[in-house]
Amino acid sequence: MTPDYAAILATIHAEVQPLLSEGKVASYIPQLSTVAVDQFGMALYCLDGSTYEVGAAQQKFSLQSITKLFALALAFSREGDAIWARVGREPSGNPFNSLVQLEYERGKPRNPFINAGALVMTDILSTRFVQSDVAVLQFARSIAAEAGIDFDLTVAQSERETAHRNYAIAHLMKDFGNLHNPVSTVIDSYCRQCSISMTCAELAKAGSFLAQHGTVPWSGLQILDRSSAKRLNALMLTCGTYDAAGDFAYRVGLPAKSGVGGGILALVPGELAVAVWSPGLDATGNSLAGTYALERFTTLTARSIF
Amino acid sequence: MTPDYAAILATIHAEVQPLLSEGKVASYIPQLSTVAVDQFGMALYCLDGSTYEVGAAQQKFSLQSITKLFALALAFSREGDAIWARVGREPSGNPFNSLVQLEYERGKPRNPFINAGALVMTDILSTRFVQSDVAVLQFARSIAAEAGIDFDLTVAQSERETAHRNYAIAHLMKDFGNLHNPVSTVIDSYCRQCSISMTCAELAKAGSFLAQHGTVPWSGLQILDRSSAKRLNALMLTCGTYDAAGDFAYRVGLPAKSGVGGGILALVPGELAVAVWSPGLDATGNSLAGTYALERFTTLTARSIF
Amino acid sequence: MTPDYAAILATIHAEVQPLLSEGKVASYIPQLSTVAVDQFGMALYCLDGSTYEVGAAQQKFSLQSITKLFALALAFSREGDAIWARVGREPSGNPFNSLVQLEYERGKPRNPFINAGALVMTDILSTRFVQSDVAVLQFARSIAAEAGIDFDLTVAQSERETAHRNYAIAHLMKDFGNLHNPVSTVIDSYCRQCSISMTCAELAKAGSFLAQHGTVPWSGLQILDRSSAKRLNALMLTCGTYDAAGDFAYRVGLPAKSGVGGGILALVPGELAVAVWSPGLDATGNSLAGTYALERFTTLTARSIF
Amino acid sequence: MTPDYAAILATIHAEVQPLLSEGKVASYIPQLSTVAVDQFGMALYCLDGSTYEVGAAQQKFSLQSITKLFALALAFSREGDAIWARVGREPSGNPFNSLVQLEYERGKPRNPFINAGALVMTDILSTRFVQSDVAVLQFARSIAAEAGIDFDLTVAQSERETAHRNYAIAHLMKDFGNLHNPVSTVIDSYCRQCSISMTCAELAKAGSFLAQHGTVPWSGLQILDRSSAKRLNALMLTCGTYDAAGDFAYRVGLPAKSGVGGGILALVPGELAVAVWSPGLDATGNSLAGTYALERFTTLTARSIF
Repeated sequence: MTPDYAAILATIHAEVQPLLSEGKVASYIPQLSTVAVDQFGMALYCLDGSTYEVGAAQQKFSLQSITKLFALALAFSREGDAIWARVGREPSGNPFNSLVQLEYERGKPRNPFINAGALVMTDILSTRFVQSDVAVLQFARSIAAEAGIDFDLTVAQSERETAHRNYAIAHLMKDFGNLHNPVSTVIDSYCRQCSISMTCAELAKAGSFLAQHGTVPWSGLQILDRSSAKRLNALMLTCGTYDAAGDFAYRVGLPAKSGVGGGILALVPGELAVAVWSPGLDATGNSLAGTYALERFTTLTARSIF
Repeated sequence: MTPDYAAILATIHAEVQPLLSEGKVASYIPQLSTVAVDQFGMALYCLDGSTYEVGAAQQKFSLQSITKLFALALAFSREGDAIWARVGREPSGNPFNSLVQLEYERGKPRNPFINAGALVMTDILSTRFVQSDVAVLQFARSIAAEAGIDFDLTVAQSERETAHRNYAIAHLMKDFGNLHNPVSTVIDSYCRQCSISMTCAELAKAGSFLAQHGTVPWSGLQILDRSSAKRLNALMLTCGTYDAAGDFAYRVGLPAKSGVGGGILALVPGELAVAVWSPGLDATGNSLAGTYALERFTTLTARSIF
Repeated sequence: MTPDYAAILATIHAEVQPLLSEGKVASYIPQLSTVAVDQFGMALYCLDGSTYEVGAAQQKFSLQSITKLFALALAFSREGDAIWARVGREPSGNPFNSLVQLEYERGKPRNPFINAGALVMTDILSTRFVQSDVAVLQFARSIAAEAGIDFDLTVAQSERETAHRNYAIAHLMKDFGNLHNPVSTVIDSYCRQCSISMTCAELAKAGSFLAQHGTVPWSGLQILDRSSAKRLNALMLTCGTYDAAGDFAYRVGLPAKSGVGGGILALVPGELAVAVWSPGLDATGNSLAGTYALERFTTLTARSIF
Repeated sequence: MTPDYAAILATIHAEVQPLLSEGKVASYIPQLSTVAVDQFGMALYCLDGSTYEVGAAQQKFSLQSITKLFALALAFSREGDAIWARVGREPSGNPFNSLVQLEYERGKPRNPFINAGALVMTDILSTRFVQSDVAVLQFARSIAAEAGIDFDLTVAQSERETAHRNYAIAHLMKDFGNLHNPVSTVIDSYCRQCSISMTCAELAKAGSFLAQHGTVPWSGLQILDRSSAKRLNALMLTCGTYDAAGDFAYRVGLPAKSGVGGGILALVPGELAVAVWSPGLDATGNSLAGTYALERFTTLTARSIF
């Protein structure tokens, strides 16, 4: 029995209103800190092609770390298991931008969703493509079927100017021999990649191939085989929401990837992709209202992978 | 379409034979080190009541850390969310018996499946019941509907004599005020609890309430509400297989709890519980052949939560 | 030219008065927390036999960690360099009771002045003597030529009841094989050893053999050879004042050993031993007024090893 | 009674011969790895103006970390205690180029002798002088009274090309706000500073002001007041020989600063400065034969600060 998604989204939209002022907009990238906090949008892309949305679901926002998922999918589709020689797939138990574990583990990042691991993905793509960031952008455009998706170069520039922590991570990996391209090339590409903007509607559509076991629902194009799609979803669940992955799985129970722009993409395998956006973050860097919205979504729809 | 479970188990049984000599039997508990390494058993308990088994599925083995799941379920069913004031629910990113994180995080364990967190569960149960270990045993008997399930006191005694690391953990938590009962009481109960022995068939049956959203399939008795069962399953996925949880989720894609006795309990929510046992462990402390068997099981049945 | 020690001590005594209320009495051992904070005593034992004192220099106080120096001297005099197989001689860079480094470095403590290292000394002495604590007490009596020096069993008992951190350290070392006697034996001995009480006058006299290159000044008895005495003094300088050793060396510039009872023993090699006591501690666990008094002492006397 | 320094140096020269092949030349800076390992030189500068030397005491070598001492002395002489707001003075207990502690302690290095702390000194000097490296060079020339002392720009360039770890450290401090000048400016200056070359004879002379309590012996020029010189010597003892400072103090018992070029400068306060050079390093990064030579020197001369 299909839930009444329209009614459920409306309920959630009403419920999150009091939360919109509780989160804090990301401040470490100056350009992001100018976004008004009290915004909320949510969109579903069901595998039968039906879509639902509520609030500011047509408002562009900065994907930030959500692009790590697209970069990983692209690298994995091209390089296969070879990528695991350079990055692990365990939760880190540490903040996403920590250098401590990276030093102890001699330059091999724990997983592709912490910054160090994402920089390795950029490095891999920088070796394979002329420009890693353009390759990720084109991939994002193709899976969302939206040619208008683009970088936000003001955000990219703002991030690059304050990217000291990422430079530190990249140089440390370079020291350990786990970065093959020049540090500045990798950081530049990474900052542009992170600046890709989408709406909730676009993001839900872009993520739908992961709900459909690796195949784009409307075109039948296979991006990843079934097993690989399963594996990416598993990684999202264990590592996709910074060092709150355990709590997120506990509360929401869906594979998901979040970004400090306030977006979260989550999947109900075999059914739908859901994107939510609200720029106010909780202490762990995940959208406060967005996480709550997804928790309510799984409760009201009785959808969960567990 | 229901897979042909009998044929699939037979296939797996044949496939794991070459692996049985590759793992290493747990050596840190002397009594466990005497178990012959080349054993393998596997059992399914489907929610419709049908069962399947192969190999040494009627052989008793020491549950060890798998009992942490039962202790958590019992504590959670009685104390509810109050337990989260004393233990977290994040992957630790460190070995299961490490004290490093515990000291940095001032005596609050990362999750209930590392040793420190399990000792807190024992402490909580020690406050509520006359004897924590007996309470867990009776709970195990009830969910498996097997009155013959019991401690293996030789194993318990062997573990207690070499439990210096667990004593260290317990004293450190006592120093931080996160252990209310005497250290010796908690360690004694914990060692007895870990020594509970079951067969694969019993273990699959005992875990089936978690596959059926908290309700015992054959009796209809509700142990946990649907939401709580979902949450425990999520914890198993993110934290249930020591610090290989990410890799296990990636390869197997099912919520699971492993033990150094070589057993693993895994769940396909809404369908079945599966128990596997082979005493040879891989470097992460999980059953080597058991993990492989579950990976093949999800591939051959196309069952995964992702 | 010999400084006018009597005048200098009087000056210091006046100067420290405003500081006596600033420190905090150690609270983690309940019995110590009852000591009045506004006390101060200081005593010199010059190698020519002359002595000087000011304030409460005849008041007994609990030596606590200062006894680690006596235990080390006793163990070193009997076992020689063999002790360095079980304990290092580097500053730890961590709090004196931390388990983090101990786990990373597989149970070998950084130096004999952190708790872990002191417990190893007690273990070594427990193997050699019937009772380690009695051996240390008799050693202390002999080097101070005061038969009345004794344990304070009320303090020992109070420390033993709250020694969870030390139990954790001892069990962790036991797990790594670096503790040969039972944990309870070692902890009991250690707590009694720490409870030894002395006056400043006694402590300065007891330390004078280290100022005289290993030989008791009044008796000519050689406790350590010249090279060994030099080495112990070096250890005091680099590791003797918890994780403030660098700052202490910077400010005071003398080898010293402090205790949470508020005492500090310091040495001017070739000239004198000085003991100071004031129970108010600074944030690093060293006597606040005592450290200041020694800093002024080196300035006013122009005595420093640097 | 003055020891027969000439005879003692000859004895040491003979004794170190078998050790010259045991150490390993620093390999992380390519240019340094080309130096022949079996070289040894030693020179004394006594405060009465007499000098002694043996072996390759007139051979130039790369000072590397020894220049940290000159940079610190220069910064301390100009900025005074203000420098301690940006760098600590405790031993680190970690390798000299580690980022772990730096992240935990939010970008404030433990002491001025680990790389992070030295980079902060360069940053401080970069703010005060047109070029930090030139200021340190001129300071080195003035205290050694040798206008011919200079950079080795081939070594500087070689170090800069492989300075990924130092870039990582600098960017991490920049992220924490503890680096005021551009990272590239600081790294460039630092690499040039480290490349300053001297002979043992020059180095002993350059260090003599620290043996004479801050005043240049032959000119009477006061670089530091007595108290400040004492404090720098104390820092050398507790932090001057990487994470082997405790062991070095134990064996040698003199304040000293070492470099990966194989040089060590040590001081007998009030008497002399001694410089030794042998490019083969031990596992801690200190000159193997050089450390042994200094240990023998303190034994044969009965000079030690303890």
